[in-house]
Amino acid sequence: MKILLKNVILDRKSSDILLENGKISAIAPEISAPDADIFDGLDKMAVLPPFYNAHNHAAMTLLRGYAEDMELFDWLSNHIWPVEAKLTAEDIYIGTRLATVEMIRSGTVYFNDSYWHPEAALKAVKESGMRATLGLLYLGNVSDDAKSANAALIEAAQDIDTIEVSHTPHAIYTVDRATLQKISGMMESDGRKVHIHVSETAKEVADCLKEHNMTPVEYLDSLGLINERAMLAHCVHLTGHDREIIAARGAYIAHNPVSNMKLCSGMFDFEAARKAGCKIAIGTDGTSSNNNLSMIDEMKVAALTAKSVTELPTAGKTADIFHAATAAGASFAGVDAGEIAVGKAADMILVDLDSPVMSGNYDLIADMVYAADPTVIDSVICNGKFLMRNKVIPGEKEIIAAAKDVCRKIASWK
Amino acid sequence: MKILLKNVILDRKSSDILLENGKISAIAPEISAPDADIFDGLDKMAVLPPFYNAHNHAAMTLLRGYAEDMELFDWLSNHIWPVEAKLTAEDIYIGTRLATVEMIRSGTVYFNDSYWHPEAALKAVKESGMRATLGLLYLGNVSDDAKSANAALIEAAQDIDTIEVSHTPHAIYTVDRATLQKISGMMESDGRKVHIHVSETAKEVADCLKEHNMTPVEYLDSLGLINERAMLAHCVHLTGHDREIIAARGAYIAHNPVSNMKLCSGMFDFEAARKAGCKIAIGTDGTSSNNNLSMIDEMKVAALTAKSVTELPTAGKTADIFHAATAAGASFAGVDAGEIAVGKAADMILVDLDSPVMSGNYDLIADMVYAADPTVIDSVICNGKFLMRNKVIPGEKEIIAAAKDVCRKIASWK
Repeated sequence: MKILLKNVILDRKSSDILLENGKISAIAPEISAPDADIFDGLDKMAVLPPFYNAHNHAAMTLLRGYAEDMELFDWLSNHIWPVEAKLTAEDIYIGTRLATVEMIRSGTVYFNDSYWHPEAALKAVKESGMRATLGLLYLGNVSDDAKSANAALIEAAQDIDTIEVSHTPHAIYTVDRATLQKISGMMESDGRKVHIHVSETAKEVADCLKEHNMTPVEYLDSLGLINERAMLAHCVHLTGHDREIIAARGAYIAHNPVSNMKLCSGMFDFEAARKAGCKIAIGTDGTSSNNNLSMIDEMKVAALTAKSVTELPTAGKTADIFHAATAAGASFAGVDAGEIAVGKAADMILVDLDSPVMSGNYDLIADMVYAADPTVIDSVICNGKFLMRNKVIPGEKEIIAAAKDVCRKIASWK
Repeated sequence: MKILLKNVILDRKSSDILLENGKISAIAPEISAPDADIFDGLDKMAVLPPFYNAHNHAAMTLLRGYAEDMELFDWLSNHIWPVEAKLTAEDIYIGTRLATVEMIRSGTVYFNDSYWHPEAALKAVKESGMRATLGLLYLGNVSDDAKSANAALIEAAQDIDTIEVSHTPHAIYTVDRATLQKISGMMESDGRKVHIHVSETAKEVADCLKEHNMTPVEYLDSLGLINERAMLAHCVHLTGHDREIIAARGAYIAHNPVSNMKLCSGMFDFEAARKAGCKIAIGTDGTSSNNNLSMIDEMKVAALTAKSVTELPTAGKTADIFHAATAAGASFAGVDAGEIAVGKAADMILVDLDSPVMSGNYDLIADMVYAADPTVIDSVICNGKFLMRNKVIPGEKEIIAAAKDVCRKIASWK
C-alpha cells in the first residue's frame, strides 16, 4: 500500500511525498508512482507532524458536560463515580470510538490512555487505525473484573504493532506502596511503560511529605518508577529537586493545562521544566475536565499558561509548545516521528492554508498553536494510512449515533 | 424577506421559528409560511444566540503570527507599529473583510472595533452583513488623515441601521486630558458610545496613581467617561472602588482573557466583577495578541481564568460566561437580542448537534463554552439574514485570496 501526496506544502515549498510500508520513503519536487493512491494537495495543503496526546481517559467523552462548575469531591463522588460504576465494556468501546473520531478530526494520531475496560478501548482504537498505549488497571484493589480486563487487553494487543499495553497505577494516594513496588519489578522484565498521575494537587504533595517525608516524585523515584518509560501526568507542583530527578531519569511529563485550570489544580511552569531538561509532552486529560480532546486548544492554553505563570511574554515559545504536542509524545510512544523526513513514520496532518485563520502564513507553527481550530485539518495519516481524508472519517455517522444512545441512557439514570 | 426555520432544536424541543423584518415573529411546533425562505434544521440543529465581540481590532488579521513571543515594547515598536504605518485604507478593508469571514465562521454577528481607517472597515462590515460599532480615531494628535477618515466614517454610517460610530480614545496614557474632556462633552450631545482601554496593565495603574492620584477608572469617572455607553476594555487591574464605580454607572467591561494571558497583563477576576454588579462582556482583542477571533476559544479561557484566579471550581459558571459572550455584548450594542424569543432581533446561530463534541448533549451551554469549536457552527443569521448558510459564506474564497496578497506584500517588507 503506497500513498503519493502530490503538490503539498512542506517548509513553504511545493513537494511530493511518497509513503510506503508505514514510512516516508521519498520527498522530492516531483515523484511518480503509478501504483500509488494519489492525494492532490493542490498547493494549498501544508504537511505537518500530527499530535500525540500524552494523557487521556478517552471514554469520558460519554460524560462530557454531565456535571459542571462543582467542588472536586462533590463532582467526583456524587456525579462522575456513580455513573462510571454503571458503564459496561460496550459503553466504553463506544465512548472510546467517539473519542477517536474527535481526536482524528483535530489532528491526533496517538493517545496514552487510562480508563476502565481497556480491552474494550482496544477494539475501538484498532477500528480507528490510531496508535495508543492502553493501561492495565491497578486502582485500589484489583478486582476479578479488572484482572480479566487486563488479561483480555494483553491478549488482544499481542498482534497489533500500533497498540501497546502499559502499567497505569492511578496515583500514589490510590495505589499502595506494595503494588507500586510490584509494578516497578514487573517493568524490569516486561519492558512495559508506566503512566501515573503525579503531583497534580498541592494536597497530594503535602500528604506525601507528611507520610513519606518525600515529594511524590522522590517517593516514586525511590520505588524505581521514574524512568525513561514513565509518563508522569500533571506534575503541577514540582520542586527544583523533582525536576532534576525527572530530567536525570529521562522520564516524560504529560502537561494538561486546561484540566489543571478547570480543576483549580494550579499552573505548571513549562519554562522551569524545560530549562531543567525535562521531556515535556502535552495531553488533554479526559473530556470531563476539559471538555474536548483537541490538542490545538491544549497548545494554545499551554502557551498562555507558560507566559502567565512566569509573567514573561517570551516564555512558552511556539516551537517548544508544538514540539511538546508532537515529537515529545511520539518519542514516548516509541514512534520515530514528529518531523516530516525520509525514513520517519508516515504520521502526518494536512492543513488547509486557505482557511481564514491560516491565510497570513507568516509563521505556520504560530498559526497552529494560537490561531487554528479543527476546521483547518483536512486529512490525517497514521502509519501510512488515511484516518481522515478530505474531512471524511469512515463510519463517523454510525459512531456518533451509537454514542448518543449511550448518553441518553446515562441521562435517564439521573 | 421572511425566513422559516423548520425542525430546529430550541430548549431541547423541535420547533419552527419565523423571522420577519429582522425580528423573530413566531415560535411554534409547526409554522406554515408559503412565501418564506425555508431552512430545514433536520431536528439536529440547535438554535442559540450568537456572539457579540466586545473588543476588537479586526484588521489585525493581516498581522496574525507576524511576530511572536517577544517583549511588549520590542514587539510593538520594532514589528507591529512599523507595519501598521504602511497599511493603506484598501489593506484595512481587506483585513477587516477577512476578519468578518472568520467571525461569522465562529458564530459572531457583531464586533466593537477600534483601528486605523475605520471608514474602510465600514465598507467591509457592510458587505458582510454583520453589525458593528466602529471607532472615531483619537490616538495621539489627530492628524489630517485621521480627521478625514473620521468624517468619511460618520458620513458612510448614516444610512446603515446595523453600524454605529463611537468615540475610541485609545487609552489614558496616549490621549490627553483635554481630548478626553472634549469627548465627554461630545457624548452628551451626540449620544455616541465610548470605547477605551482601561487598567490593562499594572504599569498603567501605577503611572495614573502617580500622575493623578486616582486609578484609571477614577480618573475617567472624574471626566464623565464611565457611563452606560462606555465599553472599558481589559480592566485587569481593578480595585474594589473601581468595581463599585463601574457597577454604579452601568458601564460595560470588555474581558479579553486570551490577550491578557498572552501579553502577561494579568488575570481579570470575573467573579469579583460579577458580584460587584458590573456588566461583563467578552472580546477577543486583535488577532496579534490572541491569535484568532473565535468567541468560543475566548469563552473557554474566560471560564478557565475565572476558576484559576479564585482557585474555586465553582467560579466562572458556564451560564455566566455564555451570557457575557452573547447577551451582554448585544446589550452594549443596543440590540434587543441574547435570547431566542418572539419580538427579539433575528440574530442566531445554528449548531450541529451531530458534531462529535456536541453528541453528549447533557448541557448545551457547557458544551458551547468548553467543548465546541467553529466546526459545530452550521449557519449564522444576523438581522434576519443568513451570513453563513450550511457552512457557505458568499465571497469567502475571493476575500481570502485578496487577504493572502496583502499578507505577501507585508512579508516582503521584512
